[in-house]
Amino acid sequence: MRVLVPDLPEFRALSQPGEGQVPGAELDFYSRGQVPVGEAQGVVLWLANAETRERLLAVSGLKWLLTLTAGIDHVQGHLPPGVTLFNANQLHDQAVAEHVVAGMLGVGRGFYRFRDAQAHHEWASPRLPSESGLRSLRGQKVVIWGYGHIGRLVEQLLVPFGPVIYGLRSKTEPDLAQHRLAEADWVILLLPSTDQTRGIVNAELLGGLKKGVWLSNQGRGDLIVKADLIAALESGRVGGAVLDVTSPEPLPASDPLWSYENVIITPHIASTTTDLVQRGARLTRDFLLDLIQGREPEGKVSADRSY
Amino acid sequence: MRVLVPDLPEFRALSQPGEGQVPGAELDFYSRGQVPVGEAQGVVLWLANAETRERLLAVSGLKWLLTLTAGIDHVQGHLPPGVTLFNANQLHDQAVAEHVVAGMLGVGRGFYRFRDAQAHHEWASPRLPSESGLRSLRGQKVVIWGYGHIGRLVEQLLVPFGPVIYGLRSKTEPDLAQHRLAEADWVILLLPSTDQTRGIVNAELLGGLKKGVWLSNQGRGDLIVKADLIAALESGRVGGAVLDVTSPEPLPASDPLWSYENVIITPHIASTTTDLVQRGARLTRDFLLDLIQGREPEGKVSADRSY
Repeated sequence: MRVLVPDLPEFRALSQPGEGQVPGAELDFYSRGQVPVGEAQGVVLWLANAETRERLLAVSGLKWLLTLTAGIDHVQGHLPPGVTLFNANQLHDQAVAEHVVAGMLGVGRGFYRFRDAQAHHEWASPRLPSESGLRSLRGQKVVIWGYGHIGRLVEQLLVPFGPVIYGLRSKTEPDLAQHRLAEADWVILLLPSTDQTRGIVNAELLGGLKKGVWLSNQGRGDLIVKADLIAALESGRVGGAVLDVTSPEPLPASDPLWSYENVIITPHIASTTTDLVQRGARLTRDFLLDLIQGREPEGKVSADRSY
Repeated sequence: MRVLVPDLPEFRALSQPGEGQVPGAELDFYSRGQVPVGEAQGVVLWLANAETRERLLAVSGLKWLLTLTAGIDHVQGHLPPGVTLFNANQLHDQAVAEHVVAGMLGVGRGFYRFRDAQAHHEWASPRLPSESGLRSLRGQKVVIWGYGHIGRLVEQLLVPFGPVIYGLRSKTEPDLAQHRLAEADWVILLLPSTDQTRGIVNAELLGGLKKGVWLSNQGRGDLIVKADLIAALESGRVGGAVLDVTSPEPLPASDPLWSYENVIITPHIASTTTDLVQRGARLTRDFLLDLIQGREPEGKVSADRSY
């Protein structure tokens, strides 16, 4: 079985003799603008730009594609017929879930504001506790919108802090979903980008939220209608937002979102850890061993996947 | 029983007819520079400056003092003989523990660095995951130094993230303590300030820590020898520090600590929440009811208290 994988040392190791080797898999390596010629049964897609991705999707003989991402919108709809798609939720669950909780706690404890004050060497002690804007997660209502692997892990991490947590799925009854959203102190977006979810956070939805609600988006930037979010920040309807994903990415320096004190932007790194590539190579190895030994690997994406 | 309490609306409510009232307690109110004359059996000490505190400690007839803080170094040693001291750990546990975890997660997920980049409208995406410096708490070794109420709560909040946690107490065998510290990725300081703990984080101790270790201080600023911490930051021995307490407080604008990217300073607000005064008044009410109805209230400080 010939498989194209990213040209990174951690993946090169999978074809070296020794413990890391995958017997029965002939690996070949692609990099930016360099895609090996010839047939391949599988592609492990990761860290490739749009042009490289297009060339990889056009490889002849392709039977399966494993994207080492959680999101699949960059490949879904572009796959040749008959190619099975796998993704790698489990590679990203822990870091993304930690990132979500880090953002919520950081907001509650004011770290972003005190960091701004630190730049001016300012000990920004509130005059009175009631004026501090600081809070605990205990008793806060948290809606996890997109209640899959990562959503459930976020819930597990949050439980000891004592918030009230609701998970929303695509099959949640709309009235109930609206009711949960209307009461939320935090709305955590973990939705994929689909025809149904793009722009789902718009003026109408924001207008139905509790005044002062915070949003956290670790799903996709295009879930949010940016102009509507900005209007809601200006009116005070939305207390603030933690955004790891934006539209577009990278967010241009001229974008107004950068300038809001109560908007916290990280550059789509929620799932990144220093050992991510190593973990990705390890996952690839287990995936290939499953295939070669006749087991179905984890992560198969069904055609009608929603959330 | 006459009791002096802070002159704040939440405490005034305790002497108003209605549900909040404490029958059997005659409350009188002090504020900055205004201490009522006459005998009092009890003082509820909070948010008072040094001069007001001194006058409150000198009130005649004093039998007990409840400080609505977790720390007691501002009163211990200054109490007239025979006065029983109570503190209010339970008022601060949750917020402080959340603050500790918020700091750890924020560092792991790079929020402080991305906030700095945001000030320049910069999408600071790392070139490669291995260069990101981002990490998960899973598998990290965390030493909680000062393993009391708050320390145990920090542990409970951390458990689902999967770190390896060790609590150190004053009675922990010194060799074991040193061994735990030498292996730690995070050292969380929750120690009180005493003759035994002041300056405990000095060059010798820092020299025995793992390269790149992060410190988090929610205890007292004087636990750390500042010059030694700065030397350890300069040498890279210490990866960084999250400091909610400093020496002195407020930290002067000229202090070199402000300027380190990897030092994160918050202005002694770890226990602050917007409803803190309300919670403090509620605790005071329960405390007074216990006393009046002949139960021993929570929070009695024993004379030989360590950690």
